[in-house]
Amino acid sequence: MNTADLGLPVSVPSTALFTDQYEFTMLQAALKAGTADRRSVFEVFTRRLPEGRRYGVVAGTGRVLDAVENFRFDGDLLGFLRDRGIVDEATLQWLADYRFSGDIHGYPEGEVYFPGSPVMRVEGSFAECVLLETVILSVLNHDCAIAAAASRMAAAAGDRRLIEMGARRTHELAAVAAARAAYVGGFHSTSDLAAGFRYGIPTVGTSAHAFTLLHDTERDAFRAQVDSLGRGTTLLVDTYDVTAAVAAAVEIAGTGLGAVRIDSGDLLMVAHRVRRQLDELGARDTKIVVTSDLDEYAIASLAAAPVDAYGVGTQLVTGSGHPTCSMVYKLVARAASADPGAPLVPVAKKSAGGKLSVGGRKWAARRRDEHGVAEAEVLGTGPVPEPLVGRQLLAELVKGGEVVARESLDTARERHVAARGALPVSAAQLSRGEPVIPTEYLG
Amino acid sequence: MNTADLGLPVSVPSTALFTDQYEFTMLQAALKAGTADRRSVFEVFTRRLPEGRRYGVVAGTGRVLDAVENFRFDGDLLGFLRDRGIVDEATLQWLADYRFSGDIHGYPEGEVYFPGSPVMRVEGSFAECVLLETVILSVLNHDCAIAAAASRMAAAAGDRRLIEMGARRTHELAAVAAARAAYVGGFHSTSDLAAGFRYGIPTVGTSAHAFTLLHDTERDAFRAQVDSLGRGTTLLVDTYDVTAAVAAAVEIAGTGLGAVRIDSGDLLMVAHRVRRQLDELGARDTKIVVTSDLDEYAIASLAAAPVDAYGVGTQLVTGSGHPTCSMVYKLVARAASADPGAPLVPVAKKSAGGKLSVGGRKWAARRRDEHGVAEAEVLGTGPVPEPLVGRQLLAELVKGGEVVARESLDTARERHVAARGALPVSAAQLSRGEPVIPTEYLG
Repeated sequence: MNTADLGLPVSVPSTALFTDQYEFTMLQAALKAGTADRRSVFEVFTRRLPEGRRYGVVAGTGRVLDAVENFRFDGDLLGFLRDRGIVDEATLQWLADYRFSGDIHGYPEGEVYFPGSPVMRVEGSFAECVLLETVILSVLNHDCAIAAAASRMAAAAGDRRLIEMGARRTHELAAVAAARAAYVGGFHSTSDLAAGFRYGIPTVGTSAHAFTLLHDTERDAFRAQVDSLGRGTTLLVDTYDVTAAVAAAVEIAGTGLGAVRIDSGDLLMVAHRVRRQLDELGARDTKIVVTSDLDEYAIASLAAAPVDAYGVGTQLVTGSGHPTCSMVYKLVARAASADPGAPLVPVAKKSAGGKLSVGGRKWAARRRDEHGVAEAEVLGTGPVPEPLVGRQLLAELVKGGEVVARESLDTARERHVAARGALPVSAAQLSRGEPVIPTEYLG
Repeated sequence: MNTADLGLPVSVPSTALFTDQYEFTMLQAALKAGTADRRSVFEVFTRRLPEGRRYGVVAGTGRVLDAVENFRFDGDLLGFLRDRGIVDEATLQWLADYRFSGDIHGYPEGEVYFPGSPVMRVEGSFAECVLLETVILSVLNHDCAIAAAASRMAAAAGDRRLIEMGARRTHELAAVAAARAAYVGGFHSTSDLAAGFRYGIPTVGTSAHAFTLLHDTERDAFRAQVDSLGRGTTLLVDTYDVTAAVAAAVEIAGTGLGAVRIDSGDLLMVAHRVRRQLDELGARDTKIVVTSDLDEYAIASLAAAPVDAYGVGTQLVTGSGHPTCSMVYKLVARAASADPGAPLVPVAKKSAGGKLSVGGRKWAARRRDEHGVAEAEVLGTGPVPEPLVGRQLLAELVKGGEVVARESLDTARERHVAARGALPVSAAQLSRGEPVIPTEYLG
């Protein structure tokens, strides 16, 4: 892994249109009203975790930074906005020079979060901040959802390896981001080559049932695969009869066969039977990889089975029942006037019927008990209490429009292990429950 | 709408790495074994609809055609595959010249489908076809899931307008595809500017709560919005007190106010109250738009409410509980040898434990009763029975590697209305049920 942009089979010259139209119309109206320059503070947070989940996982921070850097307008984009009559000429002129020049703080990638946690805070003029709402939420709502599922699966898998193989179950570019988020959440590799290309994530894969069916016999297929990919390859043994396939696999590849993959049937029972057979054949180091609609519960149920690695597809890329988070991007404070020195005023929606927000620019810290175990997510708008000063969670990501906190995915991945490890042990329970620590608001 | 590529804020010079690694390793092994050239038939189908769903909707066909055309390798991609040691030099040389040269047939976009329906059939050499598996499934599994949700929402909404506003709830590029699929499924517009830019879908949007909170009073905000966007705009009336906001809105914009939007609370009750108030104020033509975690059930429950348009976000882009389909891409027949004249042999996985497939290259037709209502999805590998010849579903999409069936999104959208309209009326029931027509296999 490294932090360099390795390129991508897709280039994103601009992220400026990954935006809801109303951001632009609000901009136009605010420019005309003279309120567009009011200093503003937006916070990204969620009012609740997905039902039953005990913690959330921050992922996508690096992608947000990419999106902010590439949020700019060329002639084509401006021409589209003009031709469609989406905004007026004054607004188009303003957009032509757009560069985000404000500040962004956020929970660092891999950190955990709870209801109310200000996982990101964007500050600048109303105009420059409001435009970023949609794309920031797209990235965080997607990537955090995948990372949370990955983290639960990683907790269930313990020391065993986890392979992300969900590319075919989600949009082709969402798949690349999903592989990235899964890696942050604890997966070890991906089947998705674009994710390897773009983010340097280790890639794996050997063969599918089609390869066996292409050949006249399963033995022909195994021989072809071993001839080309070597004995260390993984042979797929459930196209016809598993027992016969395992025997043929060891006969053809020898006891140095890398692994066998089982993709159907009662994985618990079949894995035990295959392990016994492999051992009897002397293939004691041949590993067993299981795939087939796994989720964190299936992974946990296989804890006692002789399985070496899990391949997870659908349930990973769909967030294991929760394919999106409910992150929102809310104006929490803004200046009383366009005067650069005007004081910030906390603001919040107040209508009946829910969706309440807590106004004001917030700090966040995680209080720990004497054993170092997290005991509360503490948020406030006033001064930070002395014992929490060193426990603050918001890090500087963008300063005056410049990205100041690039880091490698491995850093985020290691941070996640540490952050999850500092939660109460019940965080790892897969059963439904409340957030594992409460959120406390100080004034 | 038009069929021209309007450009996209993202360019996709190649789709070749949106691919699971095993497609490449299978290619390498087959090239070495001399089996890569065997003529092969792959079919895309699903073994089951999502639980309780009565029909599926084909969407993404146009995106599949884009992906196939752009599946090619430049030096950067080949360099990546070489540097990572994913395939050998012989395979790299083969890939350097890759262009899909086979044939693709498929259910036309907007058509409905059922368990077993061969929604797409890809034919050519094993090598050229196997590589396309992942990206074709990514597109169809995502887009069909969104279109199915959209179709149910459209059925529930009747003549009322549906606005797609889910961009912030899913990956930023999945969002563009979701807006496209929603349009095919019956939505009228989207908030996502990239979807307008790329696919010409009508875009809408005016303002959010942040705009109201930016201003010193709600009246200031309304005045600013009307000044800039005109009386025809949509004012968001639930930031503080809805009744006071509606009064202010009509006072400021006049009775020609375009619409008010309600984004929280008991929408049924609030919509009735707001309608009464608007009428009393003389704003009889002012429309009511509702948003706030809507799904097809919420839309149906508002059928008796005075609502003119629904904005749907999360539940649309997450497929209303089913964010992916379970489409698979299976080898169903292949030549007995690499000889170009060798006969096709049906093939299918046979292992115990489910995941059975029906081998053989299939035709598909929808049988209708004397009233023109669909009564069965009929699939077969033999000759097509005479009465079904004119009811066949597979259309030619790619011939000898050339795309031959580009069409506009509006064509797909109209096709969907017709296809859904020809199903038994129970197709429109939102309650859980079996597929609305059975799938019959003829020999």
